[in-house]
Amino acid sequence: MEQSYTHQEILDLDRVFRLNLINSVTGFKPAVLIATKSRDGQENVAIFSSVVHLGSTPPLIGFIMRPTTVPRQTLEYILDTKYYTINQVQESFIEQAHYTSAKFEEHESEFERCNLKASYKDGFHAPYVEASQLKMGLKLEQTIDIALNGTILVIGSIQHLYVEDSCLQSNGRLRLDKLGTVAIGGLNKYNRVEEIAEFPYARVHELPDFNL
Amino acid sequence: MEQSYTHQEILDLDRVFRLNLINSVTGFKPAVLIATKSRDGQENVAIFSSVVHLGSTPPLIGFIMRPTTVPRQTLEYILDTKYYTINQVQESFIEQAHYTSAKFEEHESEFERCNLKASYKDGFHAPYVEASQLKMGLKLEQTIDIALNGTILVIGSIQHLYVEDSCLQSNGRLRLDKLGTVAIGGLNKYNRVEEIAEFPYARVHELPDFNL
Repeated sequence: MEQSYTHQEILDLDRVFRLNLINSVTGFKPAVLIATKSRDGQENVAIFSSVVHLGSTPPLIGFIMRPTTVPRQTLEYILDTKYYTINQVQESFIEQAHYTSAKFEEHESEFERCNLKASYKDGFHAPYVEASQLKMGLKLEQTIDIALNGTILVIGSIQHLYVEDSCLQSNGRLRLDKLGTVAIGGLNKYNRVEEIAEFPYARVHELPDFNL
Repeated sequence: MEQSYTHQEILDLDRVFRLNLINSVTGFKPAVLIATKSRDGQENVAIFSSVVHLGSTPPLIGFIMRPTTVPRQTLEYILDTKYYTINQVQESFIEQAHYTSAKFEEHESEFERCNLKASYKDGFHAPYVEASQLKMGLKLEQTIDIALNGTILVIGSIQHLYVEDSCLQSNGRLRLDKLGTVAIGGLNKYNRVEEIAEFPYARVHELPDFNL
């Protein structure tokens, strides 16, 4: 049976029900850990599901930040230092990754409290999550305030990319499923993923006959 | 073995290799069809993987549009009419959904060419994808130009939400895996998804002992 909600009915829902439901409606979301380090050496890492591809030439990635919620150090340290890392989350450390969202004190490192190891590579300022099979070092390019609801789009360019090469195909495509990367559903559901189809670049003259 | 690329090495890659690789690095992406109708009745539908949750109160959803690429009618019709729909893609129609990205003529409907049925509900201007198990009607709230690379963030508020209720839990969480919703990897990989874990809201005093 189909359940329907109007805009007003969504606003009238119980708050937690609404948060759960509306966080699910866009479909599966990427699971990444964003890691930063303050100018005086405090390491920080937090889970995000709001990462979005912006372009390949140059390689630009965005993520949405809600400044009033838990991972506020992430934004503060990015604005201060200009550098951060994005690390894909694999099945082997989903629970540690999830708990980075707890409200730790500013002087506490989520790396330590959640038993994630930080690693440094090629002289980059921000730490990487060592367990991650795909890690990127980014440089802040721009922040854009979204006045509608006080969120911020943070845009960075990829400076370094590290990936386990057994999952990298000769045409540049990645078997994220073989890497063990997970997808997030809603606020707290973690999902294993299995590739079921790969279609060619869509050309009109190669259209399959869908009207059989 | 770990493969690494610097920013310059990414720019120096073969164009198609770079597109494939950089479109994969954010992890799994949502698969949705965005449908519109022009003022004179031309229906349009196109697949997108750049949808992002912006907020629940009010319910706001964003997506990234590259105006120079194929689904340019999507933006034109949204700006003209202010209304569009977002429809999650399920496994049963992934091939039809993928081929909406072919460069059809403006007067051709992707609904017709890709054998997807349009449906209209509750007097809303834009068509829904009938096969989809989770559909939303949105009203345009704002577009934000991203000068860095000419992309546009399109923000809309949910006016109507329709979901198959057998997958809706009593707390508002959705079993997207049971709905059959797929996740996209890169530009053309479609993935089945299976829920493997659900963790509570993360509280510091309930932190699991990760240092066993």
